[in-house]
Amino acid sequence: MADLVQSTDNSHLPVAIIHRAPNFKFSSSWATDIFTPIEPSDPLYPTHRPSARVIIVMALTPLKSEHLDLYPSVECVIGTTAGVDHIDLAECRRRNIRVTSAGDAFSEDGADYAVGLLIDVLRRFSAADRYVRAGLWPVKGDYPLGSKLGGKRVGIIGLGSIGTLVAKRLEPFGCTIAYSSRNRKSQLPYVFYSNVLDLATNSDTLIVCCSLTDKTHHIINSDVLTALGNRGIIVNIGRGGLVDEKELVKFLVEGKLGGAGLDVYENEPEVPKELFTMDNVVLSPHRAILTPEAFEGVREVMVGNLKAFFSNKPLLSEVNLSD
Amino acid sequence: MADLVQSTDNSHLPVAIIHRAPNFKFSSSWATDIFTPIEPSDPLYPTHRPSARVIIVMALTPLKSEHLDLYPSVECVIGTTAGVDHIDLAECRRRNIRVTSAGDAFSEDGADYAVGLLIDVLRRFSAADRYVRAGLWPVKGDYPLGSKLGGKRVGIIGLGSIGTLVAKRLEPFGCTIAYSSRNRKSQLPYVFYSNVLDLATNSDTLIVCCSLTDKTHHIINSDVLTALGNRGIIVNIGRGGLVDEKELVKFLVEGKLGGAGLDVYENEPEVPKELFTMDNVVLSPHRAILTPEAFEGVREVMVGNLKAFFSNKPLLSEVNLSD
Repeated sequence: MADLVQSTDNSHLPVAIIHRAPNFKFSSSWATDIFTPIEPSDPLYPTHRPSARVIIVMALTPLKSEHLDLYPSVECVIGTTAGVDHIDLAECRRRNIRVTSAGDAFSEDGADYAVGLLIDVLRRFSAADRYVRAGLWPVKGDYPLGSKLGGKRVGIIGLGSIGTLVAKRLEPFGCTIAYSSRNRKSQLPYVFYSNVLDLATNSDTLIVCCSLTDKTHHIINSDVLTALGNRGIIVNIGRGGLVDEKELVKFLVEGKLGGAGLDVYENEPEVPKELFTMDNVVLSPHRAILTPEAFEGVREVMVGNLKAFFSNKPLLSEVNLSD
Repeated sequence: MADLVQSTDNSHLPVAIIHRAPNFKFSSSWATDIFTPIEPSDPLYPTHRPSARVIIVMALTPLKSEHLDLYPSVECVIGTTAGVDHIDLAECRRRNIRVTSAGDAFSEDGADYAVGLLIDVLRRFSAADRYVRAGLWPVKGDYPLGSKLGGKRVGIIGLGSIGTLVAKRLEPFGCTIAYSSRNRKSQLPYVFYSNVLDLATNSDTLIVCCSLTDKTHHIINSDVLTALGNRGIIVNIGRGGLVDEKELVKFLVEGKLGGAGLDVYENEPEVPKELFTMDNVVLSPHRAILTPEAFEGVREVMVGNLKAFFSNKPLLSEVNLSD
């Protein structure tokens, strides 16, 4: 009986521009009684474009300088992802535009995924599953053993909200946790290394979960891979650009690295084909931080940030643009 | 310079019969200065067979009544596995033969594997990895989302050494833990259900890690699967016989179960072929409790039990045969 439901007139509410690539949906259930979503296809868009104070960036849709040029009154860009490197942060800083991220909404899923990828690479789930499905178990016999998680020295690169949750999850497995991060977190009981090379030298596995910036681009390079050693494992749930992919592939092909669990790549959705035949590698199509359950959390953070912005209160998950 | 190493004469040490299928190796490095291992192929076997007091059972080699008949003086069977259902326990009880297991040596690996399988099924690692390797990501687009581990109600069947470690590992993920077990463990903070049907009704996933006995055979039957519901997930790292495999396959084929992570099967190494095409199922070839690291732990428990037996001290990991 949808025709009996009274439609709500939200035209008195402040406007937020929805910025999205066509393949990223904006669910109308995300709109609430605190703002009116306006897309470029909306008849009211020309009216609102010059005065809109807020842009909501859906998923990883790039927001560049030329997009910002369209919105001379914009004061705040609401991101809906954990990392916001698809938003031109330097340009936002220059224009005095504040930026928010999805905050911690995806952190638990991201941490779960990092731990899962690490177990998968060590204990060889995906490879063993292929072995069984190919009917090889009765023919070729026992599948080679993996390696134990307990006792491994895990180095976490970026001890933010995801990295901290990765550490907490790995503690009961008996792993030794160390990290490198912009700042030492003295309240946490893990060993801090001020540079990634030292962390790699003292780790059996590196979990990459920092944000991608000019400073962290290719933070995993051939020196770090060499320091990690030929039994070392790289897990990347951050961004493809954090790892020098060409070097990573070279190390894996040459047997100079133990394995890798990758959720992100430098040229997604392209994945280096050399990895397709490797059993010590788990390849995931950029799914780490996404579950249906997490979306509800993202909506809450987005709405919370919008409420805070329109009522001049501190934003819930503002990105520090001063770096 | 191996020929310069003086060989050790262990003939004065007590004998332990090595009982193994040809494909299970007995590493001579496992023998120590406390016992002499004797296999049926050994020239001294006929001399020692009637008087041997100990049998060491390698891996899952079946030890049946007819084997025990060969050793009229045997007092103790040393198992090298966590579960000992391949040893005829009723017959051992009848003959007053004590039995030991590998105790906790494999427990951490088993618990790691159970957690890994659960994350794999929920977040679809193995299936997504196949998707990437098949080159489908650039062609078909984003892989379907999995489901979040946090908030899931996990029911553990058998809260022994493995089950307890599974619970401890899942706590930081934000899971709610309940269990059914022979006895309530009042020192642990998890909800106890005296029967598996109630546990299934109140769980999103069941992790099966109890031992296989007459009482636990097919403990996962169609009633339990129905109670778990069509989004429920079964993880089995115990024994194939704990699950009515025919029913499990039927439920999965008919979409009446959410998914399964299986390390064990009723007719290993045969795996039901209906499962080979399912993306909500992870198939592992009985690898849960095995890593090279665990073997050293097993050796320690075995040697500890032998030392204790020969010096009339309490065994380290004696199996309770009174049930």
